[in-house]
Amino acid sequence: MQKYDIGIIGGGQLGKMLIEEGLRYNVSFATLDPDAESAAANISSHHIVGSLQDAKAINALAACSKILTYEIEFINADALTALELAGHIVLPSSSILKTIQDKGLQKIFFTEHNIPTAPYVLVNNTTEWLQALQDNNFTKFAAKLRTGGYDGKGVALINTNAIANNEIEIPFEAPCVLEQFIEAEKEISIIVARHFDGSNQCFDAVEMEFDPVANLVTYLICPAKIDEAMHNNAKAIAINCIEKLNGVGIFAIEMFVTKLGDILVNEIAPRPHNSGHQSIEGCYTSQYEQLLRILLNKPLGDASIVQPSAMINILGPENFSGTYKLKGESDILKIPGVYIHMYRKAISKPNRKLGHITIIGKTADEVKTKADYVLAQFGVEKTD
Amino acid sequence: MQKYDIGIIGGGQLGKMLIEEGLRYNVSFATLDPDAESAAANISSHHIVGSLQDAKAINALAACSKILTYEIEFINADALTALELAGHIVLPSSSILKTIQDKGLQKIFFTEHNIPTAPYVLVNNTTEWLQALQDNNFTKFAAKLRTGGYDGKGVALINTNAIANNEIEIPFEAPCVLEQFIEAEKEISIIVARHFDGSNQCFDAVEMEFDPVANLVTYLICPAKIDEAMHNNAKAIAINCIEKLNGVGIFAIEMFVTKLGDILVNEIAPRPHNSGHQSIEGCYTSQYEQLLRILLNKPLGDASIVQPSAMINILGPENFSGTYKLKGESDILKIPGVYIHMYRKAISKPNRKLGHITIIGKTADEVKTKADYVLAQFGVEKTD
Repeated sequence: MQKYDIGIIGGGQLGKMLIEEGLRYNVSFATLDPDAESAAANISSHHIVGSLQDAKAINALAACSKILTYEIEFINADALTALELAGHIVLPSSSILKTIQDKGLQKIFFTEHNIPTAPYVLVNNTTEWLQALQDNNFTKFAAKLRTGGYDGKGVALINTNAIANNEIEIPFEAPCVLEQFIEAEKEISIIVARHFDGSNQCFDAVEMEFDPVANLVTYLICPAKIDEAMHNNAKAIAINCIEKLNGVGIFAIEMFVTKLGDILVNEIAPRPHNSGHQSIEGCYTSQYEQLLRILLNKPLGDASIVQPSAMINILGPENFSGTYKLKGESDILKIPGVYIHMYRKAISKPNRKLGHITIIGKTADEVKTKADYVLAQFGVEKTD
Repeated sequence: MQKYDIGIIGGGQLGKMLIEEGLRYNVSFATLDPDAESAAANISSHHIVGSLQDAKAINALAACSKILTYEIEFINADALTALELAGHIVLPSSSILKTIQDKGLQKIFFTEHNIPTAPYVLVNNTTEWLQALQDNNFTKFAAKLRTGGYDGKGVALINTNAIANNEIEIPFEAPCVLEQFIEAEKEISIIVARHFDGSNQCFDAVEMEFDPVANLVTYLICPAKIDEAMHNNAKAIAINCIEKLNGVGIFAIEMFVTKLGDILVNEIAPRPHNSGHQSIEGCYTSQYEQLLRILLNKPLGDASIVQPSAMINILGPENFSGTYKLKGESDILKIPGVYIHMYRKAISKPNRKLGHITIIGKTADEVKTKADYVLAQFGVEKTD
């Protein structure tokens, strides 16, 4: 059977961009996704249509791939463990994936390794919720489903009083992390690439602004506007996370900077991440190329920035689902250092990630000016 | 019949890199090449195996493409003219291609438009050669086949005395341009992108060093080390060439800088060019993206440099033909801003272009240091 160089579980935009970066190395890819027309399927050498939960489909991908990676966490991790036991290499490993798939295990991992994170309690049912709220003086907390949450889904922000007073019901009757709400001054993210030999490359921190409605990143700046000491501290924490995980691959470490200047790790993604898109144009070596190099056993590249950058997600508007067109594309393409990446999604849905725009410039101010122009000019519109 | 966004005549590395740059716009490509395994064939959505001289094959590509371009000049231009008459758009137009395919017509075009170029005579046979050498006081000249020459093939550098004294025979019994040899101080190249509306983007000049044996570019620096006045003059000449051609597409204008500081146009290529590879990483908008934008009727991007750059061709060594491996790849990939592009060629042949390496850095000196290191470390070796 023909063996493709890399098998990717998931066929979304992260897989698509991984393939795009691999073409100049002549790497061949196989992909697995339930959607035959998914973003990556069109440009992989071989696409398998199948569920990411289906061990048989994952095994079929493994059978035709020299090495496996994934671009989404919601996959059958037990199938990966079985493949590892049979001698396949999966990056990052299935044990890391299992820790990350379960936000409870992830929190336990943080506390076991003295990684700073917001105080939390794990609960399984209503009784445990009420007990936990009695035992802890969280006046406000985030309740997160331990498994299955994504992009703000499966997360609820709750005032403790509202539950005590029966103003709202407990939102999830499933295992949850209840996490003390700590007002963040900033949300930052750091991408760490770590190789088989333990060498790593740590990208500069990016700073995020969230859309309060969609709870999705809408605007991202690299490097983050934090002082050097805090930046070094954040990088040290990020690297420590991945070393303690014994992680090999590319990881995003999402962190809060509190009003007191403390850094708390929020969560880890074991794959290329939205907060690393700007590295394609903004850094000497992108997050995708770092992952490729690890998968191909080539050395990591330098992750430092070529120019400051911003990244804007192109999200489906709230007011329609259906085919769409871009507004203002011609205007923004005239600006130096503006790059549009589209994810081959035929249909827009509210808040669906349809693409992203990277902006680079000589200074952070120049980037900001261009980004504001892009935000003003660019949009997604329903087609007639 | 399904229509692909862009049809590319030729499936070599220039087509491959055009496709690579198009993926983030979700552009679909069809390609035509005699080789089913050509560089671009593997990543185009649809590949037609056929001769680039075969009108039927070109018509088949046109039938499934919204717009046509080409990545090599040695194609059936009459077939393109017929397609244009039938309403197809071919960029650059077939009339421009015909002027460029014939180095004699190209020279006539230069003189008709007062574009500075080395003095020349057109000859068809031995009698005309001897007459021309009698009528002109070229002590040394380049004889170039009017059609079919490529990468130094079909070109001979001759001392007039050697022919007069019967020391050598006339090398080509076919229509030729005899061009006075003028010692060049530098060889430079400028890429010009020109849109339907006449707007253009002119890249900074690159400066070349040639391998004296292979007569291929081995090392290229951008921007060229020429003063601002000369740079502006070279750009004005390059833009004037393409305006006088009424060219729409991407063009490389190769020029000599004489010892007296004059600029002479050597020749024009109506397609992405080896001397523009470094624009992928070194410029805000690459030569490939400029061509894509024209083909898709999007505005041109800014062509200015992000960082100074160098480009090294990866050429097949003289001493073998066969399968090959890269030497020193791991060493050079550790250097910030070093990018390897491989062209998916299974077999190395002497001086065959197998790939290229782009190097970017904050200063020209930094780029030079890195490029020297790459030249020292990197190589192509026969596999066992």
